[in-house]
Amino acid sequence: MIPTPMSILVVGSVALDTVDTPFGSADRVLGGSANYFAAAASLFEAASVRMVGVVGADYPMADLDFLAGRGVDLTGIEQAAGESFSWKGRYHYDLNSRDTLWTRLGVFAEFQPRIPEAFRASKHVFLGNIDPVLQLDVLDQVESPELVACDTMNFWIEGSRDALLKLLARVDLIMVNDAEARQLADEPNLLKAARWIRERGPKWVVIKKGEHGAMLYADERIFFVPGFPLESVYDPTGAGDAFAGGFMGYLASAPTIDTTALRAAMVYGSATGSFAVEAFSVDRFRTLGIGEVARRVDDFREMTFFEHDTSTIHG
Amino acid sequence: MIPTPMSILVVGSVALDTVDTPFGSADRVLGGSANYFAAAASLFEAASVRMVGVVGADYPMADLDFLAGRGVDLTGIEQAAGESFSWKGRYHYDLNSRDTLWTRLGVFAEFQPRIPEAFRASKHVFLGNIDPVLQLDVLDQVESPELVACDTMNFWIEGSRDALLKLLARVDLIMVNDAEARQLADEPNLLKAARWIRERGPKWVVIKKGEHGAMLYADERIFFVPGFPLESVYDPTGAGDAFAGGFMGYLASAPTIDTTALRAAMVYGSATGSFAVEAFSVDRFRTLGIGEVARRVDDFREMTFFEHDTSTIHG
Repeated sequence: MIPTPMSILVVGSVALDTVDTPFGSADRVLGGSANYFAAAASLFEAASVRMVGVVGADYPMADLDFLAGRGVDLTGIEQAAGESFSWKGRYHYDLNSRDTLWTRLGVFAEFQPRIPEAFRASKHVFLGNIDPVLQLDVLDQVESPELVACDTMNFWIEGSRDALLKLLARVDLIMVNDAEARQLADEPNLLKAARWIRERGPKWVVIKKGEHGAMLYADERIFFVPGFPLESVYDPTGAGDAFAGGFMGYLASAPTIDTTALRAAMVYGSATGSFAVEAFSVDRFRTLGIGEVARRVDDFREMTFFEHDTSTIHG
Repeated sequence: MIPTPMSILVVGSVALDTVDTPFGSADRVLGGSANYFAAAASLFEAASVRMVGVVGADYPMADLDFLAGRGVDLTGIEQAAGESFSWKGRYHYDLNSRDTLWTRLGVFAEFQPRIPEAFRASKHVFLGNIDPVLQLDVLDQVESPELVACDTMNFWIEGSRDALLKLLARVDLIMVNDAEARQLADEPNLLKAARWIRERGPKWVVIKKGEHGAMLYADERIFFVPGFPLESVYDPTGAGDAFAGGFMGYLASAPTIDTTALRAAMVYGSATGSFAVEAFSVDRFRTLGIGEVARRVDDFREMTFFEHDTSTIHG
């Protein structure tokens, strides 16, 4: 029997990225949180991914065909008159820092997420990094999802703090990077910052640390997954959203959302995030299969496995 | 039968530290790589630790009694006329960066390690962070050790590169932090930097990443241990040397030095390093027992453990 796919709604940016790295460049290619998320989440057979976003008249809609081919429902992508959200960034030699050369919000500036009727009963919801006022608005349009996760960024932590705090009370899980967690909680210690955040609503806090891996705070326990060591990082753009996509995609296949499932989701997310940076845009996902992802998950296990016999150290 | 203890020779600095942190300060307390190393390594019953270093006439020798009480052989500590090596540092709010306010090398400037006759047959040797010319000189004084490990720093990478490259050809293992590994290999990618270093001699490369954990490069495989998450870090000074001490102390109890032993050593080192920062100076080691260290090793295992059932993700 083939199980009923689990519906995952993602609301986020659908952008055109122009990226310079020390290894090459890409011009007006698919980008944005919703694209990266959907490319990663749709690798999982159990996941039925539904995208909501807005693009301009200039968007290369045919480039989304590969997502449609993976079963992603694109009927929530609104094409509006005007320019698509686009930006240009340049990565430095070590790929750990980026200068944003310009950003044109275009139609994204007026984005008002409209959740299609057919998407409103989605079981799992991922609120990509958009204005928390809009993230709240999405939650008002969906019907009792079983799992709501969100992302955010420094811009909203500074500028939309009240709405963000309201959002925290309504999500099950938040994914932020370490700097954002510290800024949100105004606390340099990550353990304390995670506790502060959890006290405001989310049962689970995921803190992403880029090349240094990611941590899950669940109950009073911590799970840690390292960054996957890669010899060649072509383009770090989208790694966090591909992490989120792999994370949520894995959870679609989990029988229950518990610590066991969340830990495995952290590793699947790390795997899809690590593949994202091996090529520009979402290109690595065009050829990637779930078998390769699962093998990288095995590599993660091997990377952290150790045995110790305490009898020897006690002499 | 009680096994014969494994002899570990450590050569390094024996200093007086003055440290300001956001949580308090400590004035002219025990510090230096050899002290931290010995405090951690001597926790292991199988390790018989021998220290070589130099102090000035002003050194509070009685403060070393607790190391002697742990079985550390201090006969290699030379007390010379003059001032002890001392420095003052101030940590910033997040404890990740430090300003060195002053450094007085004192008798350490003229340090010429003399390995006592009784120490020359030491089985394991740890060359703390001193001039690679002196590290080489130590190796000329010891008789066929089974394991030689060294530390170094940016100062020697820049200023004593030739000696350092000679040293690399004669050590089995090097421990450096991530910035040092990149600088030594002139390569931003850590995987490539580790390979470059291994091609120059050391079979094993340990790269320490502070709060982000540590990595072991052995054969073509990587082992990763996260930083232990602590709510209260009082003083990060000496964490790296306490890591080295726990690492080498554990290996003293290992039947053979192989990948299995080195992986466990990484976790024991991370555990002792994480205890070091819970108090000023080597103070945490005054009360710490090996049982607590082993429990933290179990915590590390729990922090990285996950299960995944690939049958579910294939639908």
